[in-house]
Amino acid sequence: MESANSGEDTESRVAFQGEPGAFSSEAGRKLLGERAVLVPCRSFDEMFEAAAGGDVDYCLAPIENSLFGSVYQNYDLLLHHGLRITAEVQLRIVHNLITPPGVALEEVRRVYSHPVALGQCRKFFAAHPELESAPAYDTAGSVKQVMESRERGAAAIASLGAAAEYGAQLLLEGIEDDPQNYTRFWLLAKPERAGEPDGQADKTSVVFALENRAGSLFRAMAVFALRDIDLLKIESRPLVGRPWEYSFYLDFLGHTAEPRVRAALGHLEEFAVDLRVLGCYRRAAEKG
Amino acid sequence: MESANSGEDTESRVAFQGEPGAFSSEAGRKLLGERAVLVPCRSFDEMFEAAAGGDVDYCLAPIENSLFGSVYQNYDLLLHHGLRITAEVQLRIVHNLITPPGVALEEVRRVYSHPVALGQCRKFFAAHPELESAPAYDTAGSVKQVMESRERGAAAIASLGAAAEYGAQLLLEGIEDDPQNYTRFWLLAKPERAGEPDGQADKTSVVFALENRAGSLFRAMAVFALRDIDLLKIESRPLVGRPWEYSFYLDFLGHTAEPRVRAALGHLEEFAVDLRVLGCYRRAAEKG
Repeated sequence: MESANSGEDTESRVAFQGEPGAFSSEAGRKLLGERAVLVPCRSFDEMFEAAAGGDVDYCLAPIENSLFGSVYQNYDLLLHHGLRITAEVQLRIVHNLITPPGVALEEVRRVYSHPVALGQCRKFFAAHPELESAPAYDTAGSVKQVMESRERGAAAIASLGAAAEYGAQLLLEGIEDDPQNYTRFWLLAKPERAGEPDGQADKTSVVFALENRAGSLFRAMAVFALRDIDLLKIESRPLVGRPWEYSFYLDFLGHTAEPRVRAALGHLEEFAVDLRVLGCYRRAAEKG
Repeated sequence: MESANSGEDTESRVAFQGEPGAFSSEAGRKLLGERAVLVPCRSFDEMFEAAAGGDVDYCLAPIENSLFGSVYQNYDLLLHHGLRITAEVQLRIVHNLITPPGVALEEVRRVYSHPVALGQCRKFFAAHPELESAPAYDTAGSVKQVMESRERGAAAIASLGAAAEYGAQLLLEGIEDDPQNYTRFWLLAKPERAGEPDGQADKTSVVFALENRAGSLFRAMAVFALRDIDLLKIESRPLVGRPWEYSFYLDFLGHTAEPRVRAALGHLEEFAVDLRVLGCYRRAAEKG
């Protein structure tokens, strides 16, 4: 099997959402190095379809931000397209104020970016009441737009990589409210492309539904707790067509080949509905 | 104490997000009857601030949709403003195609609505490829805009109430993909306004954090399971400033005055951090 996280992957084509320079493309470079071909997509839907349809080898999906929470849409798309998690990478999110070259802070009037990025720079806007925040399609796309439109007084909030990508000027660095701002991404592939997890994998993600009866979630947690398996995260998503019933996504520490993990998943299968292993992969470093 | 869900509340001022005719205002009417004063707000932030600041008695926050999932922003705002849940109401969401009077379906070219509403009518758009979907600020606001702008070929997707509010024409009824489309709302007030739960309350919502150690979530579930208390829902949200640690929101069946509920919450307090009861209120009917 070709390793997804070796950094020496010469041929992989990886779809990501956003324009070149987006945080997703930075994460792709961090995980796969310079030689992977990163393919920009306009939407998460388009990116998942590219991976599921075989137009690309992988797609790289943001799955959780440490301030904003889970990217629920990508949980739903992962399940819908039946992709497998092959690797995880984590990126420190630094927001910067970016303008065309030669523009001074005093000249800036309107700041474009993705609504989530704007929302993560509230203190900056509070300190600069003369600036208007303007929601846009994405972060790097805002830099591109500001460079192309040459709108007077326009700036963008985006990554350093986006500034470099479009030859823009870095006016202010690190304007986010909270420096504890990280996004985790999953590298996803069709099961036949993903292959088997290697020996370095130490984290597993599963999804299942439970019959709507008292104590069922407690029993599902017990399956892991009784075997000293550490749960890292639980997420619930609605079951479409069955109001107020849920799918549960669990991440835990362990390899699917470990006897206790196999026993736990066998135990869970006794009463859970539609249990699926989403992937077994190497956990991203705690921070950064 | 003045009962929030008696339908006979003559004086309450209730903030909601959206324009008159929005689903939130329909939910307000369903819960509080005709005599409550519904106060439209532009954003969830504004609505919470109105209730926390005393400009209104309550705000009515959508908290979960059966297809879309939880409205995470409102979980965060509830915690931030320290409001109390006083009542719950559930609304069947029916999407309709609405135009100015006299417009025929063949003349419609562009359909405005909130992105979530547009996303819940995908089959309709697939069956009508000649129609362009156009994201807008909200559902009822789209009807207002279409009526005021008189843009040729423009329509909106919104509730029956929105059509009535603006004297618009109901062109097609029930164009949503999935009829199992419900939204639950919470009526929120400052603790001193909320008062004590009455005898009809049968559901309690709490929030707490857990130390990041193995088995802690299992122990929290055990507190309820060992006392035969039914969990209805679990939701996790990131703890700001502590990447990959979470607050947990639990809804369960029971009144805070019941001995087993008091025992369970006392037990949870032994090891949970920042345990707070968000409210004890009457559960909305299963469906409709």
